Amino acid sequence: MPACEDDFFEYLRSIDCSDVEVYAIPEGYAVFPKVPLMRIEGPVAVVQLLETPFLSLVNYASLVTTNAARHRLVAGKSKNLLEFGLRRAQGPDGGISASRYCYMGGFDATSNVAAGRLFGIPIRGTHSHAFVSSFMGLDEITDKTLTSSDGSNTCEDFISLVQNWLIRIQDSSSLHGTFGETSQSELAAFTSYALAFPNSFLALVDTYDVMRSGVPNFCAVALALNDMGYKAVGIRLDSGDLAYLSVEARKFFHAVEKEFVVVGFGKTSITASNDLNEETIDALNKQGHEVDAFGIGTYLVTCYAQAALGCVFKLVEINKQPRIKLSEDVMKVSIPCKKKCYRLYGKEGYPLVDIMTGEDEPGPKIGERLLCRHPFNESKRAYVVPQHVEELLKCYWPGNSSNSREELPSIHEIRTRCIHHLDRMRPDHMRRLNPTPYKVSVSAKLYDFIHFLWLNEAPVGELQ
Amino acid sequence: MPACEDDFFEYLRSIDCSDVEVYAIPEGYAVFPKVPLMRIEGPVAVVQLLETPFLSLVNYASLVTTNAARHRLVAGKSKNLLEFGLRRAQGPDGGISASRYCYMGGFDATSNVAAGRLFGIPIRGTHSHAFVSSFMGLDEITDKTLTSSDGSNTCEDFISLVQNWLIRIQDSSSLHGTFGETSQSELAAFTSYALAFPNSFLALVDTYDVMRSGVPNFCAVALALNDMGYKAVGIRLDSGDLAYLSVEARKFFHAVEKEFVVVGFGKTSITASNDLNEETIDALNKQGHEVDAFGIGTYLVTCYAQAALGCVFKLVEINKQPRIKLSEDVMKVSIPCKKKCYRLYGKEGYPLVDIMTGEDEPGPKIGERLLCRHPFNESKRAYVVPQHVEELLKCYWPGNSSNSREELPSIHEIRTRCIHHLDRMRPDHMRRLNPTPYKVSVSAKLYDFIHFLWLNEAPVGELQ
Repeated sequence: MPACEDDFFEYLRSIDCSDVEVYAIPEGYAVFPKVPLMRIEGPVAVVQLLETPFLSLVNYASLVTTNAARHRLVAGKSKNLLEFGLRRAQGPDGGISASRYCYMGGFDATSNVAAGRLFGIPIRGTHSHAFVSSFMGLDEITDKTLTSSDGSNTCEDFISLVQNWLIRIQDSSSLHGTFGETSQSELAAFTSYALAFPNSFLALVDTYDVMRSGVPNFCAVALALNDMGYKAVGIRLDSGDLAYLSVEARKFFHAVEKEFVVVGFGKTSITASNDLNEETIDALNKQGHEVDAFGIGTYLVTCYAQAALGCVFKLVEINKQPRIKLSEDVMKVSIPCKKKCYRLYGKEGYPLVDIMTGEDEPGPKIGERLLCRHPFNESKRAYVVPQHVEELLKCYWPGNSSNSREELPSIHEIRTRCIHHLDRMRPDHMRRLNPTPYKVSVSAKLYDFIHFLWLNEAPVGELQ
Repeated sequence: MPACEDDFFEYLRSIDCSDVEVYAIPEGYAVFPKVPLMRIEGPVAVVQLLETPFLSLVNYASLVTTNAARHRLVAGKSKNLLEFGLRRAQGPDGGISASRYCYMGGFDATSNVAAGRLFGIPIRGTHSHAFVSSFMGLDEITDKTLTSSDGSNTCEDFISLVQNWLIRIQDSSSLHGTFGETSQSELAAFTSYALAFPNSFLALVDTYDVMRSGVPNFCAVALALNDMGYKAVGIRLDSGDLAYLSVEARKFFHAVEKEFVVVGFGKTSITASNDLNEETIDALNKQGHEVDAFGIGTYLVTCYAQAALGCVFKLVEINKQPRIKLSEDVMKVSIPCKKKCYRLYGKEGYPLVDIMTGEDEPGPKIGERLLCRHPFNESKRAYVVPQHVEELLKCYWPGNSSNSREELPSIHEIRTRCIHHLDRMRPDHMRRLNPTPYKVSVSAKLYDFIHFLWLNEAPVGELQ
């Protein structure tokens, strides 16, 4: 097999997409199998070269956005969802894409600082375990001063303030007995972190032992910060029984609030992480927990439950001639013709069905009865009277056509749209177990044409 | 939560890695849990910043190389393995990485032309289904001339030559009855492709019907090419029952060889693809098939069976002080100290065990009895007399040290090394089902030190 000729790359350099038109369903819409996400028109050679780039850009992006939205559905709207996947993503660009599309799918923030910088996504994270174990003791902290939140006074020895609080916690009768000596490395790490980031002190508390060291150390630092007018953000649990530990930590926070009369301390935020996914969050919800935020990495960004999305790119028309791709597997038969796609909404505001029609057919009309047919199953068909009709494919690259180009919204607008579109789906379509399939249909005219072409193209078998 | 300060990016700009040293196991080695793949030394802040880049670069690369090697083990050495994953990979860079590391793991070629160009990986592929369906008939081919392979003569009408061969195949009594009319779109596509690439005619034969259209059309074009001194490469099956279709296609090729006395035609190459993975290849092998090459995409590049590798980056020593990361889960306890790592080989040439020692301990010696201990399980230990000792961590970035830097081998050398290293593993370690775990150990001195530290750091519980 000869290698690729240099002339091929010269040819690639010589072409452009000025003759190409691109129509697509806007980012953030809920989409369903068989409805084209994009319609590309143009010279066949150029359009064919776009197959792999578009599939490569669309498949993973759609998959991970969907996965993020599924995690949001399980976690509920009140929880903070943090994407923590960079180091387990499939290559550096996989990580950047993951951060971007998880945010679009409804996550609140990412630990990926580069993605935060590139796309304006909120960033969130904690220090590392190594930051904790890099300290030996409090004497390693050289600058011990902390100016109060309002700038009115300065504590010359924040370390002593922390140490005093730790003693008060240890001496308290209501907190007594739950722990003995805490780790001095950990206390030094927390203190150092709080001195550097007094407004965003979120401590990873499981380097040694959550309840016997991490939580009391955190509380000592948080109470010292409180004295200086700062509010600690909270703790992060990254191992062990997250339901149990979150409940125990919450009890401890409430006991601290009561013991030292620090209003709101009981509500200190608890972030949980450690190989979380839809199933583990669902299980935590069933057990009961006190987690306010989930940090989700591996299972989210690699889409562990289904690591690939099988979008394909099919030739449906050439030189005004419709083309069909047949297959033994009816799911792989393509729907021929340049098409228009519409979403029809019912009177309760839910989308009822998507329908594809030929390019020249009149579109569905509000209040007019319309026959929607399953593309392949003769007996599946329904009349629909739409209350609202939305054309799905918008022009994003007009090429030489006179169509105007849709504006590209910001990532924040796409995220809002995605949340909105999922919110207005009928609940039974969104169930995790056995959801009702959303209906995708073709017009009566397109149905007849598909089946005419199919019979025409498919060879006739002979039973022997 | 405040966004990241601009000063942080200024800081990032100001640092370099001149004080950092990087030691790593060479690419292409078989590696085992607990043995560090890399050892990074340097100022803690800089080294800590390297955590995510290294994990992001190493985790997926190691995972997909391993996945490729596993596919090779199942497919056997005689088959050609082609990586076809670009459009299902997790983002564009995921696809490029996949092509590169699948080649290292023992694949023969990729369909990713960009990866071929960037890394010198052999490229292989077929035309697309859309190429077939873009043709209506033979009259669309304008240039019908083909010069023979040796340049001695030119066929003015290659199309007629193809058509004559198709008639001869259809009229042959031994081939008779297996098909009727073949698709003229497909015949036109194959002919056009053969005219453009007479030396690399590999036809995708399942656009309409493999045995009733694709294979006879392929044979007509291949026989016409044969008349002109060219040898067709073969066919690709991309749907249906691959075992059955490959056997039927092989029978047809043999019948063509016999009928028209074309020596070697029966051996025409058959490539199979369509959601292949370790399990489906294993099942095909058990059923019996006639496939010469497997094109593997989705399951290979997304590592569908296990979509992430959980390598971590741990602080093991700071300011000459060893550090340990404890955890409720013993698998997550890190092995402290700056370490050296060795692979010990037995007299049959197989690797027996990997052993980690402290930096200052003398290394294992050939012929000398050495106690190897399981890092955490007191009762698991064994004496070994190595016949060959290999130090695993080599210097790839000497920083300010006087160590010399290892040369970086070419991708082809790494591939050869990978194949070689897998070949010399003891077969029971390489079984797909219930492999014998390869042993990873520590020296007696390091064992004692780990457990001394562990007891020292772990808080003592109190049962209530």
